[in-house]
Amino acid sequence: MPHQDERLSISDVLVAKKRISGLVTNTPLRKSYWLSDISSAEVWMKLENLQVTGSFKYRGALNAMTFAKERGVAKVFTASAGNHALGIAEAARTTEREAHICLPKNVSPAKRQKLDRYSVAIVQHGEDIESTERFAERMAQEKKGVYISPYNNREVIAGQGTVGLEMYELIPKLSTLIVSVGGGGLAAGIGLVAKVINPKVRIVGVVAAASPTMKTAIQSGRIVPVMQQETIADGIAGNIDPETMTFPLLQEFVDEWVTIEERDIRQAVFDFLENEGMLIEGAAAAAVAAVSSRYINFKQRERVGVVVCGGNIARGQWRDIVGEALISAPGVR
Amino acid sequence: MPHQDERLSISDVLVAKKRISGLVTNTPLRKSYWLSDISSAEVWMKLENLQVTGSFKYRGALNAMTFAKERGVAKVFTASAGNHALGIAEAARTTEREAHICLPKNVSPAKRQKLDRYSVAIVQHGEDIESTERFAERMAQEKKGVYISPYNNREVIAGQGTVGLEMYELIPKLSTLIVSVGGGGLAAGIGLVAKVINPKVRIVGVVAAASPTMKTAIQSGRIVPVMQQETIADGIAGNIDPETMTFPLLQEFVDEWVTIEERDIRQAVFDFLENEGMLIEGAAAAAVAAVSSRYINFKQRERVGVVVCGGNIARGQWRDIVGEALISAPGVR
Repeated sequence: MPHQDERLSISDVLVAKKRISGLVTNTPLRKSYWLSDISSAEVWMKLENLQVTGSFKYRGALNAMTFAKERGVAKVFTASAGNHALGIAEAARTTEREAHICLPKNVSPAKRQKLDRYSVAIVQHGEDIESTERFAERMAQEKKGVYISPYNNREVIAGQGTVGLEMYELIPKLSTLIVSVGGGGLAAGIGLVAKVINPKVRIVGVVAAASPTMKTAIQSGRIVPVMQQETIADGIAGNIDPETMTFPLLQEFVDEWVTIEERDIRQAVFDFLENEGMLIEGAAAAAVAAVSSRYINFKQRERVGVVVCGGNIARGQWRDIVGEALISAPGVR
Repeated sequence: MPHQDERLSISDVLVAKKRISGLVTNTPLRKSYWLSDISSAEVWMKLENLQVTGSFKYRGALNAMTFAKERGVAKVFTASAGNHALGIAEAARTTEREAHICLPKNVSPAKRQKLDRYSVAIVQHGEDIESTERFAERMAQEKKGVYISPYNNREVIAGQGTVGLEMYELIPKLSTLIVSVGGGGLAAGIGLVAKVINPKVRIVGVVAAASPTMKTAIQSGRIVPVMQQETIADGIAGNIDPETMTFPLLQEFVDEWVTIEERDIRQAVFDFLENEGMLIEGAAAAAVAAVSSRYINFKQRERVGVVVCGGNIARGQWRDIVGEALISAPGVR
């Protein structure tokens, strides 16, 4: 097992894969004719909306919880905008650990409702996910538990990297990967894998215009506070831990950044439903919109992987988006 | 290899599995909290809407086409309400065979549109799928090709049976299986597997009230013409081949029959989207409605498998259903 001060590598992802396989769903990697037609590339979608708990976050959470169990840790604390919390709650059940989960006050109702199915301790605290994180970290220290950050954690990042492994197992020639970035755990984990398997791969980091935190950080050379606006991409919104280990990894791995406007995220939710038959959450729709609203240039027929990171969209949100689109669509119904 | 006059058995399904694995998606088997809550059972959904071509029909079609290729057949003919045609078209591509496809005049636009992506010969003929079938059979004889019925074919049935194998690989204790029935290929194939693995399994056959062809046949002791009405469950509608080998298999395998009203099928399309985040076609929604509209009694916490057989719903159909539900839903949006 690598030391905690060693640099993360693809080996950590392979260890994670072994730890979590059997419990995690190897989600479908499906060709999108819709996105392929728009882009003239060959676009493959990694459907993490079909993952256990409805998001890739279960991978990192389960890897971290299993690692904690291996070390005899009984009690973990975490903070999350929703999906990491769901991942930890599910992982707490399978690993039989005690979990304490801190949520920001503005947590998505869809995620809160799903969380209530689990027997975990829940505290709502903080206006912004970053202050919720600091609160959870303090609680962990006071109560002698282990804090598992949603992204600034070796096992979490390694677990998310298994998304990339599964993609390359099926389509070895992926030359562009499109990944939504909040705290950056997913993009960092995928980068660990992709940059080894195909050093020429282009990784595109996607942020929401309402909350371009990591993109701003990379451009500033350090993590700086960013004004936050309302977005349906709650899974990638909010400020982040100024010391996060994902920052130097993304400096190295992400080749291009794109900022998606809110209207394009909403449109992508509807268009994905229409063309792929599935409801996805805003954070996933941001990555889809990077292709469907033509934010990225592609080579003819290059193989592109889009990570559809989650499907936990609130009832009111999708009804609002779909209702609006159906009313305004010309000549249908 | 078994002789063509031998009785079909689970061995044929195992042979099919070997033939088609690698090309066919081992689709997710996901627990439905929504259907579990309604039924007090533990309900697992086999998501064949995520299969290649958007329906389980690719399994049987690919098995039959690969079998044809093994015997040196170059040219096949088929008739289909849509999903079997898509399966044959996709299988023709992968097996490099020539396919001629006959569709009834009222084929679903969603399916016709998807078919146009393939380089196959398409003829629209017949008001009812049964007359389309007879036409395709004649064409095959005249043009010295092989006719592959959408359900009255050993390899097709065996291929569909792999759905059952995959379900039992993951959840060995399934005690009730719910399967939509048109020509009966899926239910027959699954029955071959399920009744061997768990002889006490209860198989529930689901038909649409607008087209209860096989249920009427079983009750009459033979296949009789049934008056057909309009239904969104086009995948299980229409009259069937009076000599089909699925008939005696379903006489043996299906323990209960339920007839689903059209309004419940439509409601299930909406409710599945709301609760499971996916658009499914009418034939699949009929099986879901058997649980969600409480057509079936379950033992507490028994393990139930629902085959969600396909996702190829026409754009106008889902927009109509969802639009109507959003307008009439009180207090949302």
